[in-house]
Amino acid sequence: MSAVTYGDHTKDVDDLELTKFAVPRDVESNQVLLKTLATPVNPSDLLLIRGVYGAFPPKVKLSETDPVVHVAGNEGVFEVSKVGTSIEGYSEGDWVILTSGRLGTWRTHVLVDFPSGGPEPLFKVKNAGEGGLKDIEGATLSVNPPTAYQLVHNYVKDWNSDGRDWIVQNAGGSHVGQFLTQFARMLNVNVLSVIRGGKPNHDEIVTELKSLGATAVITEDQAQSEEFRNHELRSIFNGGNVRLAINCLGGASATALFLMLSPDGAMVTYGALTNDPITYPSRWQQYNNLTTHGYFLTGNTKKNPQSKIDTLNAVLKLYKSGKLQVPPATLLEFKDGNLLELYLQVIKSGKKGIVKYI
Amino acid sequence: MSAVTYGDHTKDVDDLELTKFAVPRDVESNQVLLKTLATPVNPSDLLLIRGVYGAFPPKVKLSETDPVVHVAGNEGVFEVSKVGTSIEGYSEGDWVILTSGRLGTWRTHVLVDFPSGGPEPLFKVKNAGEGGLKDIEGATLSVNPPTAYQLVHNYVKDWNSDGRDWIVQNAGGSHVGQFLTQFARMLNVNVLSVIRGGKPNHDEIVTELKSLGATAVITEDQAQSEEFRNHELRSIFNGGNVRLAINCLGGASATALFLMLSPDGAMVTYGALTNDPITYPSRWQQYNNLTTHGYFLTGNTKKNPQSKIDTLNAVLKLYKSGKLQVPPATLLEFKDGNLLELYLQVIKSGKKGIVKYI
Repeated sequence: MSAVTYGDHTKDVDDLELTKFAVPRDVESNQVLLKTLATPVNPSDLLLIRGVYGAFPPKVKLSETDPVVHVAGNEGVFEVSKVGTSIEGYSEGDWVILTSGRLGTWRTHVLVDFPSGGPEPLFKVKNAGEGGLKDIEGATLSVNPPTAYQLVHNYVKDWNSDGRDWIVQNAGGSHVGQFLTQFARMLNVNVLSVIRGGKPNHDEIVTELKSLGATAVITEDQAQSEEFRNHELRSIFNGGNVRLAINCLGGASATALFLMLSPDGAMVTYGALTNDPITYPSRWQQYNNLTTHGYFLTGNTKKNPQSKIDTLNAVLKLYKSGKLQVPPATLLEFKDGNLLELYLQVIKSGKKGIVKYI
Repeated sequence: MSAVTYGDHTKDVDDLELTKFAVPRDVESNQVLLKTLATPVNPSDLLLIRGVYGAFPPKVKLSETDPVVHVAGNEGVFEVSKVGTSIEGYSEGDWVILTSGRLGTWRTHVLVDFPSGGPEPLFKVKNAGEGGLKDIEGATLSVNPPTAYQLVHNYVKDWNSDGRDWIVQNAGGSHVGQFLTQFARMLNVNVLSVIRGGKPNHDEIVTELKSLGATAVITEDQAQSEEFRNHELRSIFNGGNVRLAINCLGGASATALFLMLSPDGAMVTYGALTNDPITYPSRWQQYNNLTTHGYFLTGNTKKNPQSKIDTLNAVLKLYKSGKLQVPPATLLEFKDGNLLELYLQVIKSGKKGIVKYI
């Protein structure tokens, strides 16, 4: 039984440690024992390990005899292995995710305490024996798909299904961008995805995004060119209504999206990868009645926990019906051997990956 | 009977002309004859004369025998003098304003055609014999008070009356700013007004704004100082909730307002006097769930004409009850003599003024 863990003074992923621990034979009446099925490796996992968010998540006790440690990882899907006698609603074989990222997920087993009267620490994604959900879908369920789903649904409530409404987004190749494209196309809403140009596999990326549903894919250089916006882009939109701009970058990239909006449109910022401010002309906002919003999944969920649960259920339904697909990611399998080395292999590849526990 | 008029190639107020015209003895069945009571001189009147808005308003026919001309002026209050036989709802002695600024108001009389089936060209502000409304109130009714009223009421619908909610605004000394202050204080909402500093009569301006209801008045230099915002300003707000920022300037002034907002607050831009863009940090918007809007009275009224009528009625009620006051303005009286010279006197003083026709 292994976990990827770290101490208080970790500043680099090379300080990560492998901790072995014993899994209890039996659980207490208020505990559930989980076996890990799959966990992703996200950039935010590495930021958390490096303490970039100001505070580390709380330490957890892996077993009775081992010291408390931080466990790396925030997402993952688990199979219920043992259920305490006082816990209702869970059976052996159910699939669940953790409702808080604070327990750490890069480990073979998790022993979860159900606090009396507190919020449920688990969210069930599939009943024992039920089909229709892949482990990689469950593993990556809790952050990107709900973000994308809420971005599409929270700001425009009356999408037209006539095929003339548009969403424009930068970071169109990100996982959020790829989920967003799929959700939009389910509503018959067009998507213009702006991506960084100049990559050697540019054409391949464009083909991939279009296969997920993107109506058009352009580069940042094109999006930021007034000439391009006034000509090529107009003929792409073809008189359609650009109602929503989804910004994850800031700076000139955000300005370009803002200038694409049709009257009464809205720009939503859910990330600030460039760290540059948002800038746009006052009169453009005034005369076109444009609105801007900030989006923050964690903050919204804290204010209204049910909103996240409703969103997760909507996403699960789409996965189980086969309408939604996980964007491509590197898959690695862990059976036995060194769990830490496997995670380091993903991290050092610089790519997003999913570790499957088989 | 005189009017201040201009031709197609006017580029300066010195090109304004005085046109004399004959007032008809009788009106047609679909006409109303108005006598002017008072008209203001606004900066936007001069912009319109100079053709800054790209197009001049349409020409009007002052009398049967005179040529068509542009008449200057956009606002004013009038007394109904003669009513055509087919027109209902108006009596001699009623006070009215023009619902469109396109007829021009700097003139002693206006002959108004009621188009069959078209929108009413007049809005009644007071019945004949009814008291409670001054001519200077009626004359300045149609732009600034509705703007200020809608800015206070359209974006925050649930103001708390506990005295802990705040509006912050730049251009706090403008007429819109002064009306806004009065409307906010009627709801027990605090107002922080930012004004340009360094004027010789600074203390007098501050006293005047506070007497209208401003909770605090600070200068642009103070508003734009991080040091000031982090200390003095915090103690002014005293833990209150800064829910609305009203921006008429853009640039650094708008950024400063944005950074004053409490979580879930909104910034509304209704003007762009500096012509500098709006700029603010992405993450500040995201983590504080801040929204920005553009406001444009003319555009909103075009979309929903009833909204303007409802607002005018709300403002009139406040005037008639004595709760609202016109911000200080220079008053000039016209009896006979040269109407043009009187308007030029106001314009060249560089101050806002109101011409009363006695």
